[in-house]
Amino acid sequence: MKSLENKSIPYKIYLTEEELPRAWYNVRADMKNKPAPLLDAETMQPITAEKLGTVFCEELVRQELDDTTAYFEIPEEIRNFYKMYRPAPLIRAYCLEEKLNTPAKIYYKFEGNNTSGSHKLNSAIAQAYYAKQQGLKGVTTETGAGQWGTALAMACSFFGLDCQVYMVKCSYEQKPFRREVMRTYGANVTPSPSETTSVGRKILEQFPGTSGSLGCAISEAVEAATSQEGYRYVLGSVLNQVLLHQTVIGLETQAALKKYNIKPDMIIGCAGGGSNLGGLIAPFAGEILRGEANYQLIAVEPKSCPSLTRGVYRYDYCDTGAICPLQKMYTLGNGFIPAASHSGGLRYHGMSGVVSQLYEDGLLEARSVEQTSVFAAAEEFARCEGILPAPESSHAIRVAMDEAIRCRETGEEKTIVFGLTGTGYFDMMSYGKFNDGVMGDYIPTDEELQAGFASIPQFPGNEI
Amino acid sequence: MKSLENKSIPYKIYLTEEELPRAWYNVRADMKNKPAPLLDAETMQPITAEKLGTVFCEELVRQELDDTTAYFEIPEEIRNFYKMYRPAPLIRAYCLEEKLNTPAKIYYKFEGNNTSGSHKLNSAIAQAYYAKQQGLKGVTTETGAGQWGTALAMACSFFGLDCQVYMVKCSYEQKPFRREVMRTYGANVTPSPSETTSVGRKILEQFPGTSGSLGCAISEAVEAATSQEGYRYVLGSVLNQVLLHQTVIGLETQAALKKYNIKPDMIIGCAGGGSNLGGLIAPFAGEILRGEANYQLIAVEPKSCPSLTRGVYRYDYCDTGAICPLQKMYTLGNGFIPAASHSGGLRYHGMSGVVSQLYEDGLLEARSVEQTSVFAAAEEFARCEGILPAPESSHAIRVAMDEAIRCRETGEEKTIVFGLTGTGYFDMMSYGKFNDGVMGDYIPTDEELQAGFASIPQFPGNEI
Repeated sequence: MKSLENKSIPYKIYLTEEELPRAWYNVRADMKNKPAPLLDAETMQPITAEKLGTVFCEELVRQELDDTTAYFEIPEEIRNFYKMYRPAPLIRAYCLEEKLNTPAKIYYKFEGNNTSGSHKLNSAIAQAYYAKQQGLKGVTTETGAGQWGTALAMACSFFGLDCQVYMVKCSYEQKPFRREVMRTYGANVTPSPSETTSVGRKILEQFPGTSGSLGCAISEAVEAATSQEGYRYVLGSVLNQVLLHQTVIGLETQAALKKYNIKPDMIIGCAGGGSNLGGLIAPFAGEILRGEANYQLIAVEPKSCPSLTRGVYRYDYCDTGAICPLQKMYTLGNGFIPAASHSGGLRYHGMSGVVSQLYEDGLLEARSVEQTSVFAAAEEFARCEGILPAPESSHAIRVAMDEAIRCRETGEEKTIVFGLTGTGYFDMMSYGKFNDGVMGDYIPTDEELQAGFASIPQFPGNEI
Repeated sequence: MKSLENKSIPYKIYLTEEELPRAWYNVRADMKNKPAPLLDAETMQPITAEKLGTVFCEELVRQELDDTTAYFEIPEEIRNFYKMYRPAPLIRAYCLEEKLNTPAKIYYKFEGNNTSGSHKLNSAIAQAYYAKQQGLKGVTTETGAGQWGTALAMACSFFGLDCQVYMVKCSYEQKPFRREVMRTYGANVTPSPSETTSVGRKILEQFPGTSGSLGCAISEAVEAATSQEGYRYVLGSVLNQVLLHQTVIGLETQAALKKYNIKPDMIIGCAGGGSNLGGLIAPFAGEILRGEANYQLIAVEPKSCPSLTRGVYRYDYCDTGAICPLQKMYTLGNGFIPAASHSGGLRYHGMSGVVSQLYEDGLLEARSVEQTSVFAAAEEFARCEGILPAPESSHAIRVAMDEAIRCRETGEEKTIVFGLTGTGYFDMMSYGKFNDGVMGDYIPTDEELQAGFASIPQFPGNEI
């Protein structure tokens, strides 16, 4: 058995705590074509730091708007928090390789070894830190399934910040486990829409029985942040600042590969809002941009929410409520909502501006996969590698396995690296559907896509 | 801030994969007073290997009965599986120390970094391996909350063994998440009592609406094992073999401490059936038994199920169904059932024979704690150390924190090591009760204990 041979490369490569990255990497500094500036939703002009600062923390605004500084030092307090769950292991999938009988070498960077269960904590702790530094009392945010809310609750409890989470009402009721994790970390969790904001009250008046939406929860969280003294709003994906913090994933991966002199051929990540993918690939994209190396970079998205593979590159609102700034990105339209039968995550209508620009410039390719094939890959992976992956992460597993199987057929000994962003412990109802054989696939029709595109704001240069 | 200083000892001490123990340690070999032999439930005589072999795998029977061999080599295939989630980190609780403002140094061995969420996997993989070696088709077991069943499902899927789990019906219905994890790993999960066994059918006939019990599930699992060709029954705690496999916890802890020249003063573990506690303390107890060192070893149990602190040292059945062998142990009586309001785990009526004998001989002390104080400790720990602990594990956290607070008062710089056996992701309803302030404490009265003791079999030398 191959997995029983003595290994020159361990199952898990752990960097030491001293080797933890000391700075985040801002890939925009190396991009010739910079992502387009954010637009103010009121004026449709590039947004100012001052305007952004009414919603976000000062230092985070600085990070958001800076596209020339290549490295941002990671403050010592954030690095110390990172040490509680980082460096994250880069794992050699010896057992999966053997099961697939492939000559490919497969590695995955595992971000699930923390209570939030995903990479979200990497940015949550940074955002909470800067809020604390600014002397704020607390932060507000929205959460759907609760992964981001959990990460933020953990981060705020560490720094003694108040954490107000607006949780989409149907999730609040159907996912009590996530809600209780957040409460255990001291967060104040409010089902949205609620009576605590004027926008919430207005929606409740109009639609008394509504079970809420992410767009509505964002609106409530932003109102709560701007109407309370000493509060700001924080967001878990899409933004440049979030992608910047997530580069700790890619930097560690790069360092671990270098430590064992491993040269990857392809790097694969799943893509929802794009923060984990962007964080994973940024340092490698940087090498390509600087002409130092070449890699095949692959984004994987669900066929049911195919922003890169079937979307358009336009300015669009980051939120369905159209109150946040506009970003130029690959988008299906802020009005696009994936089918309810889609349970595999990655439901965001758009894509990080940085990821979109890299894709537009051909540095990154994109593939879309059907959810039943994603769950099949997840199950096969779990049964030999032990880890039960999140459905989101399993999109990357699917394509990594497909590539490894292709190597079996061609005989190529490629080195594949993929990002395993989190665990699926809170997704067991979706796994249950798959186990019971009642999970379907859903691919939006061209007409449905056109209807989504219609929600993209039309102005000169932005027409569909 | 203390946690911001440069540290000579890292947050997490990871052994290399080469440093993973090569043999399990059998503490019985160093015990002058050996645990009393198991008794055959039919003959009340010491049980024979042949008789045990009808229920358990051959090699496991050998391990169960051998009280003179000090080390059992860990087969290469088990070590390779261990490498997927071990060596487990020994973590310095810098943040907890700072929060408690204590001069004590606190370390914890974290066993939760695997999908089963606990140390159970350490023995599950060993038991599955020996079943495979023996050429069996599969194994059967029972599970309550599902932790052990999950670990066994993972292990069986790795070796391609059939895994039949009898899950107490009320858990099957109330804990669909755990059920689906097991199914995702390919296990066949049957709500117990069921129509698949004669004992199940009999119980259903007598009590048509019953929601099941662990005793009934054990009976079904044993019947399923003995009535199918090529099947054996496996158990997740209490037995000597399980405790033996769990010594990988203590051996790694010992090695990590030695690597950094750390000398612990006390070692604390939670105690249900005793396998994690026994595995953690065994190598340290061995040092004491051989006169090489001295440590304060502390078992922590719930006040609602106080087998060590209020039980009696007698022969008793390992199962409530009285079909398994009898073991001499500290017990509350096989008929004792902790109050339904007890949600903190560790509900077993007895205690591992090895742990019981060490306690009887004064090598180990025991403390009992109330569940609200356990959840309060869990929450405080989670908020500063990040990890959301299982309620079971949190019994050890409670006493470790109490000891650290005592050090703050006395100024002693003690070094405290405790076992953090798992994560609480599937225990959020219990956390919810605590968060809502509706969790109570329960201490059995002397009369209730007497009623439990009445279920202990009475024979010469075993009277109450």
